[in-house]
Amino acid sequence: MRRFVYSFQEGVGRDRAILGGKGFGLAEMTGLGLPVPPGFTITTAACRAYLESGKLPAGLKDEVSTNLQALEEATGRRFGDPVNPLLVSVRSGAPISMPGMMDTVLNLGLNDETVKGLAHQTGNETFALNSYRRLLSMFGDTVAGIHRSRFEDHLERVKAAAGLKDDTELDADAWREVVAAYEAVLDAEGQRVPQDPHDQLWEAISAVFRSWNSDRAVKYRAEIGIPEDLGTAVNVQAMVFGNRGVNSGTGVAFTRDPATGTRALYGEYLLNAQGEDVVAGIRTPQPIRRLQEDMPSIFGEFSQIAERLENHFRDVQDIEFTIEEGRLFILQTRTGQRAAGAAVKVAVDMVEEGLISPEEAVRRVSPEQVEQLLHRQIDPTAELEVLATGLNASPGAAVGSVTFDPTEAEEAASAGEAVILVRLETTPDDIHGIVAAQGVLTGRGGRTSHAAIVTRGMGKPCVAGCEALRIDYGARTFSVGDRVVRQGDLLTIDGTTGRVFLGEAPLVEPEMTEEFRSLLKMADAVRRLGVRANADTPEDAARARELGAEGIGLCRTEHMFMQADRLPIMQAMILATSREERLQALNQLLPHQRDDFVAILKEMEGLPVTIRLLDPPLHEFLPRFEELLVEVTELRHERGEEQKLRAKEALLERVAALREINPMLGLRGCRLGLLYPEINEMQVRAILEAASELGKQGYEVFPEIMIPLVGHPNELLRVKEDLERVAQDVMEEQGAEVSYAFGTMIEVPRGALVADEIAQEAEFFSFGTNDLTQTTYGFSRDDAEGKFLVRYLEDGYILEENPFEVLDEKGVGELMRIAVERGRATRPDLKIGICGEHGGEPRSIGLCHRLGLDYVSCSPFRIPVARLAAAHAALEEIDET
Amino acid sequence: MRRFVYSFQEGVGRDRAILGGKGFGLAEMTGLGLPVPPGFTITTAACRAYLESGKLPAGLKDEVSTNLQALEEATGRRFGDPVNPLLVSVRSGAPISMPGMMDTVLNLGLNDETVKGLAHQTGNETFALNSYRRLLSMFGDTVAGIHRSRFEDHLERVKAAAGLKDDTELDADAWREVVAAYEAVLDAEGQRVPQDPHDQLWEAISAVFRSWNSDRAVKYRAEIGIPEDLGTAVNVQAMVFGNRGVNSGTGVAFTRDPATGTRALYGEYLLNAQGEDVVAGIRTPQPIRRLQEDMPSIFGEFSQIAERLENHFRDVQDIEFTIEEGRLFILQTRTGQRAAGAAVKVAVDMVEEGLISPEEAVRRVSPEQVEQLLHRQIDPTAELEVLATGLNASPGAAVGSVTFDPTEAEEAASAGEAVILVRLETTPDDIHGIVAAQGVLTGRGGRTSHAAIVTRGMGKPCVAGCEALRIDYGARTFSVGDRVVRQGDLLTIDGTTGRVFLGEAPLVEPEMTEEFRSLLKMADAVRRLGVRANADTPEDAARARELGAEGIGLCRTEHMFMQADRLPIMQAMILATSREERLQALNQLLPHQRDDFVAILKEMEGLPVTIRLLDPPLHEFLPRFEELLVEVTELRHERGEEQKLRAKEALLERVAALREINPMLGLRGCRLGLLYPEINEMQVRAILEAASELGKQGYEVFPEIMIPLVGHPNELLRVKEDLERVAQDVMEEQGAEVSYAFGTMIEVPRGALVADEIAQEAEFFSFGTNDLTQTTYGFSRDDAEGKFLVRYLEDGYILEENPFEVLDEKGVGELMRIAVERGRATRPDLKIGICGEHGGEPRSIGLCHRLGLDYVSCSPFRIPVARLAAAHAALEEIDET
Repeated sequence: MRRFVYSFQEGVGRDRAILGGKGFGLAEMTGLGLPVPPGFTITTAACRAYLESGKLPAGLKDEVSTNLQALEEATGRRFGDPVNPLLVSVRSGAPISMPGMMDTVLNLGLNDETVKGLAHQTGNETFALNSYRRLLSMFGDTVAGIHRSRFEDHLERVKAAAGLKDDTELDADAWREVVAAYEAVLDAEGQRVPQDPHDQLWEAISAVFRSWNSDRAVKYRAEIGIPEDLGTAVNVQAMVFGNRGVNSGTGVAFTRDPATGTRALYGEYLLNAQGEDVVAGIRTPQPIRRLQEDMPSIFGEFSQIAERLENHFRDVQDIEFTIEEGRLFILQTRTGQRAAGAAVKVAVDMVEEGLISPEEAVRRVSPEQVEQLLHRQIDPTAELEVLATGLNASPGAAVGSVTFDPTEAEEAASAGEAVILVRLETTPDDIHGIVAAQGVLTGRGGRTSHAAIVTRGMGKPCVAGCEALRIDYGARTFSVGDRVVRQGDLLTIDGTTGRVFLGEAPLVEPEMTEEFRSLLKMADAVRRLGVRANADTPEDAARARELGAEGIGLCRTEHMFMQADRLPIMQAMILATSREERLQALNQLLPHQRDDFVAILKEMEGLPVTIRLLDPPLHEFLPRFEELLVEVTELRHERGEEQKLRAKEALLERVAALREINPMLGLRGCRLGLLYPEINEMQVRAILEAASELGKQGYEVFPEIMIPLVGHPNELLRVKEDLERVAQDVMEEQGAEVSYAFGTMIEVPRGALVADEIAQEAEFFSFGTNDLTQTTYGFSRDDAEGKFLVRYLEDGYILEENPFEVLDEKGVGELMRIAVERGRATRPDLKIGICGEHGGEPRSIGLCHRLGLDYVSCSPFRIPVARLAAAHAALEEIDET
Repeated sequence: MRRFVYSFQEGVGRDRAILGGKGFGLAEMTGLGLPVPPGFTITTAACRAYLESGKLPAGLKDEVSTNLQALEEATGRRFGDPVNPLLVSVRSGAPISMPGMMDTVLNLGLNDETVKGLAHQTGNETFALNSYRRLLSMFGDTVAGIHRSRFEDHLERVKAAAGLKDDTELDADAWREVVAAYEAVLDAEGQRVPQDPHDQLWEAISAVFRSWNSDRAVKYRAEIGIPEDLGTAVNVQAMVFGNRGVNSGTGVAFTRDPATGTRALYGEYLLNAQGEDVVAGIRTPQPIRRLQEDMPSIFGEFSQIAERLENHFRDVQDIEFTIEEGRLFILQTRTGQRAAGAAVKVAVDMVEEGLISPEEAVRRVSPEQVEQLLHRQIDPTAELEVLATGLNASPGAAVGSVTFDPTEAEEAASAGEAVILVRLETTPDDIHGIVAAQGVLTGRGGRTSHAAIVTRGMGKPCVAGCEALRIDYGARTFSVGDRVVRQGDLLTIDGTTGRVFLGEAPLVEPEMTEEFRSLLKMADAVRRLGVRANADTPEDAARARELGAEGIGLCRTEHMFMQADRLPIMQAMILATSREERLQALNQLLPHQRDDFVAILKEMEGLPVTIRLLDPPLHEFLPRFEELLVEVTELRHERGEEQKLRAKEALLERVAALREINPMLGLRGCRLGLLYPEINEMQVRAILEAASELGKQGYEVFPEIMIPLVGHPNELLRVKEDLERVAQDVMEEQGAEVSYAFGTMIEVPRGALVADEIAQEAEFFSFGTNDLTQTTYGFSRDDAEGKFLVRYLEDGYILEENPFEVLDEKGVGELMRIAVERGRATRPDLKIGICGEHGGEPRSIGLCHRLGLDYVSCSPFRIPVARLAAAHAALEEIDET
């Protein structure tokens, strides 16, 4: 027959899936010989059987009965005994921690009779009555569904009538009045706590079972992705009391500081109180180090136990304890949650302490935590009052004065003021305000709202869907409850957690701690994927190298042409009406380009630098058509401006000729170089001249020349045959030998499909997944994100993820798979990377690893995230094999 | 040992690849017992061996010697015999007819001695001398490379000096002078014709071998795609002479009229002449029917032979014959080339005559020929003088007055005048002129020039790259040689052949002849692919059905909204600021849509009609942004127009909000319906109401509702769940049962990649290969064709074909293959079609067949092409298995 109950002793070494998290911890602690009040665990299997059939499974009652007897023997008390009653607690405990389920009922076993026995047994009637009312309210709340405040109102009333502040000051009569009032609350709802302790026990156990399917629990599981069929275990345990006088108490402590990771007990305790009193805040708890003064021997014992538990579980423990008349009991232990910085420190420290392996340390820190560390954060040690909480839509913290209007935000920002833009929701019309603000706070919309998507794209903090906000644009105020916040008031938002604070919270700039560096080194030892940076300037290159980049995966050359001293020459080049004119302009650009490349290649000495030839449509370098059109129309209405008009008309005509209906799919990428080979030739000349110059100075440099937007092997062939000649010419002129390579971006579907042919010509591939996502989906990112993508992502209406943030595995990923397979079939040593924005996103990095890429390339500031995510991908692969 | 020579008799039944086309015909005719002068064929293998080693293969000389002896025996003459000399011809003959190779040398065997023998033997000294000078000039031309005009100049000089017009009037002295002059021409070039007849023979044979690798031949093979390694055969044959008096002659005849296909001998002959004289035009040849009067028995004999040959080869024969002193000889027979209309008539007639099977008839007519028949053509019986010839860039013929300026062309056209736009080349700026013109003639650019691509897209005739044109825009004239053509002069262009005629040539409107219908029925019996039409109006639907469409594969609904009475309602719908306003406008559109569908479904009774829900970006229905911007800017400069200004500003704002950076990849297709479900709902309601109404009237109709631009299964799922409900509602309201289906277009790469998931929701797929080509290549068609594609296609620089005309097999075709495979894996009976423009292009249809599609859908006027191309695809498959 199946077994449904294990005493804590019997549970030692058994599975968390059977015992639940709490039961598992209790069993392990019992096995270690720690002072755990005795008890037993009803398994998750019993819960499943109950939920399936709607009744308690056969045999369960007997097993519980047997275990209850053992408990009576162990404690020397009897359940329901009017003289020496055994009291027990019933606690839920799922295999994965899960808010939303029924939690705890204490003091089961008390009734009108046994409460007297308890008074007698403890010699403390107020304690006994206090315990009884706790049972009534907890049972009422968790089993009968009557909110606990409805009970507590009566306690407050009685205390107020007696002019008392602290529960401990109430006398027995007052407690009797409270008990009576609690019973009346139950009665008014047609409920009662059974007088038979066994009935109490079974009602509590069944309620825990049923709470697995409460609305909140089901919703939570759906959100987090916990399987529906796990079920919860139930723990029945002999009561111990922290509220039996000043020699008793209760507390919670972490084995290390969860905010900083420092190795020292961290927590608080309250004498003469039970756990729920700490939560209710009846008195201010004391920091745990004070226990050393209050009860030195208990503190010593607890410290030793804490260390044993950490060593046993090899992780930070979050421990609940109770002191009953000078005796220490441990009620729970579990893995301690910790802040991102603490997670890094703890992981690295534990490696040094020999507790865990470097691989385990890497596993213990998520890429998302690392990402937090790379944004400004609110000082984790600061004590702050939360004004409201919304959705953590874009990470990082920001401080600024409240502004409601995007245009005013822009004006304030240009006057040097830091502002937080507060809107009910944002639309594409607000974009200038978003650009200007330090951060954005919205009253409506989720993680995929316009504000969320746009701010994440900009790397700017955002708290979205903060529903407590009441915004009055007319009055330029918002309120939360009765707090009114006016335009200009200082506000702090934390996009990492979704919290909003009034005033200026202390922020911490992101910082690479020693431990952070150590952890990333451990990650480096594990990962297979290389990590490079997308960097267009020497400054970015230096930053990237500092953060661990192993090369540049994408150096865009177009930004170089946008600089003020170069743009006029670039425009002259574009507007040239003959090849000669164009060549003249290009010759002026050449020394600038060469200087750019000298500086960047130097920063990346010894590492590869992938330089992409000119990619964007040429009209991006020219004045905007619409503005010119307005100017020309206006000039036509003015007199005496004929000459200016003619010039503008000519420019308008040229700009109009270069206009495209779908520039994303137009004359750009390698198509530019095929129509105007002299642009490419200038760029390759600049690269090779720079490399030659550095080579002569003794630098080892490795330029990789990347030809964008290739969909047909001939595109690459034609461009390359031209540029190979230029490269040979320069090397001959310079008398230098440069180690360079030609490769291509795979960023249109056809490039992936004919990768076998393209690999004939390409020494490397780099996936341009921004464009590849656009063409695979047929989405223009510029148009989609502001328009239909918001709807698509709403509650997963069409998509679960924005494919421009997280690589689309089934579509874009499938093309990548095809490209890798076919490319390597032609050229087994083909170097393959990714330089789209996905290269810095953890799940996408996981996919790149599984697809067998050689490296990812991302923004410099995401390099640490990528290093860790790459390591996680490698560890997951190990786990799966 | 390998055998290199076959006598004509020995060649009977052997392979054309060995004997070449000419040798094959001679052998077959010999086998049939026809009067073929005896001779032998040196095989293509001998040619290959010669070209490989640079020398005559071992054994060849002996084999030729043996065959020459046999020839001597058969004719009773000896090669080189001064008394009774044997004369032979040497003719090349590759397995596939190939201009650019050396062709013929006659009268080999003549020298200073044997010419006397010939004179004696024939009793005709002028004939003998004439024959000798022919040898000298042909040998000089084809073996020594001296142009024949350099010889003929001397013949003309002698004739002129004697005051004679006809060669036959020259006496022996005059011929001796001519022979001496010819020898002097050779001598001046250091050349001579060997006196030893065997040397003559071997030099001629070797020259034929070498001519396989002449520049012209190599270029021709590369263009047509003939393998390089076939080699040519050489035919050596006893001479017969058509120039031995009025009882001799020569001619060429087709067994059927190559222009019309009528079953009657068609050709011409010349008495007392050799074949080359016909070509040289020394006298005007007579039509072949006159031979019946001139030589009734010869005509009778020839008629019988012609019929035997046609029956033997089961195809129209193009036959060369010579009459020597009243005796008929057949020198060559080959398949007769024929005009498109004739090809159809001959094929169908031959089936009726029992000569060929219907499958063979289908094979005999190419889809390109059918395409010609669907354009206006110049009357094939008209006798016209060609002014110039360019490239056949876009098929069909057009007549109009010459116009050089696109704007003037537009003005003339709007005044009702038919114009031909003549330009050196066209650019995107000329587009309005191209639209206005009947056809386009350019002096520069190939089949992939701007003019060619644009006119093909419009189905408008174009002759491109007509290099003889000298255009003077200033004078508004063009000249060809010394002919000057002025603006306003009438001109006829034939884009099917590339010819240009002065004046107005008679045009024939495309017509479905009885034979054409029969042929297409034969094609229908062979093909596996269904053929549907893209039709948006009842008129198009009727035309398509008349041309054989088996349903509508694409009915676009957006054109319906563009009509003058509907556009304002459509605009009101788009500009609506609330759902209610939008619904109101849609309710106004509903009856129009229902009427549209009633009319179209009725026309297609009994056949499926695929209706695509609204697809294009909404701003296509609104005034253009640029125009509004100018209007608003101008209004701002005027006084008293405030009200108008406000209205325009409001409109501008709304249009601006709908503007997209890349509309092709923006808010369109199913994305529209997901944002504004009420649009789809109105359309589906209109479809179901129309079908219900027709059903009640007893019509069987099959609407298929197609949801465009699906890349994710959820898009289809969400749209469908909404529309299924509407469909059910309407059927309930109407008390009708409608047989309808929901399906999708596969037109973005992701749709193809996840076809397995999409097929869960779709009952049919239709490949939208226009968009799929755009997204697979990352090409915006609007931008590409006017800009870089021209360069891409130039001499196959990047691409051999415009992927918007011919389906890109490796890219787009690969996605289609994936989609078919994955879609059918989920739903084995998934109906799959294509509705992009490629659905009417023969090679693309072949690919669709191989991919296993169920049908193609194309413009109504291309339906016949599609029917035939689909049959060809099926036959090719049979051939391959």
